[in-house]
Amino acid sequence: MKTTDAAVGFAKENGERFVEELKALLRIPSISTDPERAADVRRAAEFVAAELRRIGMENVRLIETSTPETVLAPSSGPAQVIPERKGHPLVYADYLHAAPAADGRPATTVLLYGHYDVQPPEPLDEWKSPPFEPMERDGDLFARGAADDKGQVWMHVKALESLFAAGGGRLPVNVRVIVEGEEEVGGEGIAAFVREHPDELRADVALVSDSEMFAPDLPTLCVGLRGMIYTEIEARGARTDLHSGMYGGAAPNPLVALAQIIAQLKDAAGHILIPHFYDRVAAPSDAELKAWKALPFDEEHYRETEVGSTVLTGEAGFSVLERTWARPTLDVHGIAGGFTGAGAKTVIPARAVAKVSIRLVPEMTPAESFALFKAYVEAICPAGITLEVRLIHSGEPIVVSTDNPYVRAATSAMRAVFGKETVFVRGGGSIPIVGDFIRELGTPALLMGFGLPDDNLHAPNEKFHLANFHRGIESIVRFLASVGA
Amino acid sequence: MKTTDAAVGFAKENGERFVEELKALLRIPSISTDPERAADVRRAAEFVAAELRRIGMENVRLIETSTPETVLAPSSGPAQVIPERKGHPLVYADYLHAAPAADGRPATTVLLYGHYDVQPPEPLDEWKSPPFEPMERDGDLFARGAADDKGQVWMHVKALESLFAAGGGRLPVNVRVIVEGEEEVGGEGIAAFVREHPDELRADVALVSDSEMFAPDLPTLCVGLRGMIYTEIEARGARTDLHSGMYGGAAPNPLVALAQIIAQLKDAAGHILIPHFYDRVAAPSDAELKAWKALPFDEEHYRETEVGSTVLTGEAGFSVLERTWARPTLDVHGIAGGFTGAGAKTVIPARAVAKVSIRLVPEMTPAESFALFKAYVEAICPAGITLEVRLIHSGEPIVVSTDNPYVRAATSAMRAVFGKETVFVRGGGSIPIVGDFIRELGTPALLMGFGLPDDNLHAPNEKFHLANFHRGIESIVRFLASVGA
Repeated sequence: MKTTDAAVGFAKENGERFVEELKALLRIPSISTDPERAADVRRAAEFVAAELRRIGMENVRLIETSTPETVLAPSSGPAQVIPERKGHPLVYADYLHAAPAADGRPATTVLLYGHYDVQPPEPLDEWKSPPFEPMERDGDLFARGAADDKGQVWMHVKALESLFAAGGGRLPVNVRVIVEGEEEVGGEGIAAFVREHPDELRADVALVSDSEMFAPDLPTLCVGLRGMIYTEIEARGARTDLHSGMYGGAAPNPLVALAQIIAQLKDAAGHILIPHFYDRVAAPSDAELKAWKALPFDEEHYRETEVGSTVLTGEAGFSVLERTWARPTLDVHGIAGGFTGAGAKTVIPARAVAKVSIRLVPEMTPAESFALFKAYVEAICPAGITLEVRLIHSGEPIVVSTDNPYVRAATSAMRAVFGKETVFVRGGGSIPIVGDFIRELGTPALLMGFGLPDDNLHAPNEKFHLANFHRGIESIVRFLASVGA
Repeated sequence: MKTTDAAVGFAKENGERFVEELKALLRIPSISTDPERAADVRRAAEFVAAELRRIGMENVRLIETSTPETVLAPSSGPAQVIPERKGHPLVYADYLHAAPAADGRPATTVLLYGHYDVQPPEPLDEWKSPPFEPMERDGDLFARGAADDKGQVWMHVKALESLFAAGGGRLPVNVRVIVEGEEEVGGEGIAAFVREHPDELRADVALVSDSEMFAPDLPTLCVGLRGMIYTEIEARGARTDLHSGMYGGAAPNPLVALAQIIAQLKDAAGHILIPHFYDRVAAPSDAELKAWKALPFDEEHYRETEVGSTVLTGEAGFSVLERTWARPTLDVHGIAGGFTGAGAKTVIPARAVAKVSIRLVPEMTPAESFALFKAYVEAICPAGITLEVRLIHSGEPIVVSTDNPYVRAATSAMRAVFGKETVFVRGGGSIPIVGDFIRELGTPALLMGFGLPDDNLHAPNEKFHLANFHRGIESIVRFLASVGA
């Protein structure tokens, strides 16, 4: 208990320095989707590794990964096949000689997971301050990656530093740290590593901080995540681009074809039209649905402040929380092909590509869902069009256990920090590696994140509320100290 | 007749030089849609003007134009309003003191029209040689603008040079030349000039060379053109870009909305679904349909060599020539918004823009067609989406007279060059100014073009068949000499 208080005290005294260090990490544009940023991505990995080494973690190293062959579809020109290539490295560190428990059982081992890569910052002109020049405004720190996930990775590192400082260079618990650099591109590298080297990440519990609190000041554990399949539908029509004056009325138009396909993927009420797509969808339990109804959620406030659209959309007959947490949904992220510059060009493009993703819920599987999707898209292919339907990446949906001592330790730690009981929610997004921890390692996962719903993840003006950065560090300090006690 | 033969001889002797000069013009990237190319566009105008001056044309000058305020929609970020701005200049020249006819009637005045601006060259990586480095291969000259329309403008200029050379510095006919630089962006500048200064382009007949021959070696006059409306549909959903994991199932998706709208614009059989859209469509006469059936047209050959798709598409119940010449058609040219780079980004974009054009046929009008389109699109707008439907530019459909001495002079000129009778066809594309010549100036237009169906207009690897360049010059020499006689 003394160690805990000392560590919390250390974190408070050094809070400002922690923020300045985080800013330095945020200045590195570690955009994992952009091949031209590979050196920056590596620089971010080295930054994290250096700090883990400095605070006293052991066996700190970068683990190289490789990514299997992929087919990329640029917005114009032919598809490119990218051969198997070096991926972005994992950062690994451990501390595995904590004192055993009073009853002689070996010390608990906690696996801390986060990612140091970030989403592309586009559209740049909507940022109020540049995405890689962190800026504090009104208690928030604005930068790409502030909340997703560099800020939360830094909470882990700084909680460890505080515990080392309070413990005279020792931790009260065994810790492994794994920080990946490909979360935003599907996490192939870490998935392969988990499969091939399960012993190196063996732990009693995984603490994952890549999620958010349900509301400001409300400690939250996320106990379910949607999975996803991210696909590309490539449509080819004529051999080359054609002039719509001369060929309009005779040549197939891949953009029109994609629109016709997309319009048949879900109906106006948001119901996905792929046959058998809902066959495996498991409804949440009555208890879970009841708990969701008790959450402080004002649909009109959400529409107005978070979404900002005239109305909310989605499947009729389900609440917003059900629709975003427990129902599969389909979105289109971009349609490449033809001419999208200023002005007019009357081209019928030879090819066009739509990026379409579908969020999955338990008990759906990516493989079966993609097979159903692909078969349906091919079945509704318009005349004159040749299709290629590709799976770009995927992640399994998961539900995590809430009935274990780690969950109790986490809720107790957050009660001490926030003075409130923890709520259990689900998340609509995917953290593919969580499923691998559970399935491959048999490690229960705690999704304890400190972002806020309005943190603008994946969007312009991403931010992290700095009060939550500090409360996150204290919560993690208390959690690690208590599971080690 | 002696003058004609001498001019034809001069053109033959100087043919190689004419091609080299054309290459110099083709090297200027006069892309009128691209604001950054404005200086190049002007350079092309000056190049044409200098040559007209050199060969002996008079009153050669650039006429400045202005373009009204437009709203541009870049592929990301907010729409931009471009205030009224300077447009690309017109090139004007004349020669108005030809000798009167033997019976004392004043000499005939011919207005020669073409355009020196070109389409954007994208996608660049599909060009076999760079678009602005003209290259001869197998009797074809490859470059952006080779056939559309710099090569055909150059036929006019070189026919005039040949007649000047043969006539000792005099022309056998009055000539006005007008060459515009905004044909590929809607031709607002010349349209305004025609309306405001009708006397300066007053002529007995307009010779327009911006079309093609129906088949190699087949002299062709185009007697009808489709009009068009080029539109943008901008869809807005959430206030900012959102993450599809967190908001998929609640936030409206403008890309999905545009797909749903586009899919409702025409049915799978190519029939446009906008109410009352076909009300004013005039069917071609029985005689015209019969003449079209007699044209050397092999649908399977066309599909295989020109379009290169698995099947041809378009409205059921109409032949390819009817569908592309005499039926309204709808195409989508590009859909901007979201993420179209390599890899995956799970964004629900706040806004997206589709570029949609509709080809019009007699007796449809752009204004009424756009009003019907806009009302229908707004009526089918999906929930949660706010739309803006904009008209970017438009052109009226036209049918030109075939019963006049100029048509007889033109067919006679081409019979002398090709040894064949001229066929009368229509074109699927638009040359908006032709309608203005007919309506505003009362000038009959002769659409005598020398492109070929496989010249790749508006597409990579645009070319001009050099034999047709030379035959075009000779045909124009013979035509001008005979109407002046």
